[in-house]
Amino acid sequence: MVRLDDDACWHRLGSATHGVLGTVHPRRGVDLVPVVLLVDAPRIVIPIDSVKPKSGARLQRARNLDGDDRCTVLVDRYDEDWSQLWWVRAHAHGGEAEPDATLLARLGEAFAPYRAPGSVTSVLLLTVDSVSGWAAAAD
Amino acid sequence: MVRLDDDACWHRLGSATHGVLGTVHPRRGVDLVPVVLLVDAPRIVIPIDSVKPKSGARLQRARNLDGDDRCTVLVDRYDEDWSQLWWVRAHAHGGEAEPDATLLARLGEAFAPYRAPGSVTSVLLLTVDSVSGWAAAAD
Repeated sequence: MVRLDDDACWHRLGSATHGVLGTVHPRRGVDLVPVVLLVDAPRIVIPIDSVKPKSGARLQRARNLDGDDRCTVLVDRYDEDWSQLWWVRAHAHGGEAEPDATLLARLGEAFAPYRAPGSVTSVLLLTVDSVSGWAAAAD
Repeated sequence: MVRLDDDACWHRLGSATHGVLGTVHPRRGVDLVPVVLLVDAPRIVIPIDSVKPKSGARLQRARNLDGDDRCTVLVDRYDEDWSQLWWVRAHAHGGEAEPDATLLARLGEAFAPYRAPGSVTSVLLLTVDSVSGWAAAAD
């Protein structure tokens, strides 16, 4: 198991399309949701979309960030062959924001469902404070 | 997108071999790590092993649970075809414990590297308080 340096962590984050977002919930402690993501260093962008049906209420992840702007994003690879494992974790802070045209275009390039106008309703803009990661084997 | 009922959540949890564990860190807010897991309802068992090299200190995830025993486990399936997405989240509480012989045997059945004596040094025993989950399509 080798510790990944910051450059290696950012490289793997930048290649990732999805991960897990952890936010602080005042009662439950930790809320986790799977997310798709885009890296716009030093930020991670997590789209909030209208593609998947929602309960109608503002998403809990955004409300959690209103109350405590700290969050964590994990990107990992699991494999039954444990020599292939790796993961990268980013500690960040941020909240919900309006995406500009450049960001919407990038999201559309990265994810076909987001090419439909209006499909991305807002984004979570997360500024990364630190990254760390491990890989079972060197690159 | 359909909400999964408790039985469906437990079924998917029980079939999972790995997921993401979120614990509460007093300064950083949320710590996330990928984990392998075993369901022993109403508990989730997360082995701590000697297979992968460790820093030598007691694992941060265990220290976090000492300070705040709330935690969250997410199991999810990502696919570029978003009609295949699903995830299950369990809110739980617990801490580090000694595994008994039955549990060690089950861990060895589930994960070949754990058949070596001494490979599992302890476990996190997490009692699930609630489960929730979503799937893009019904079973």
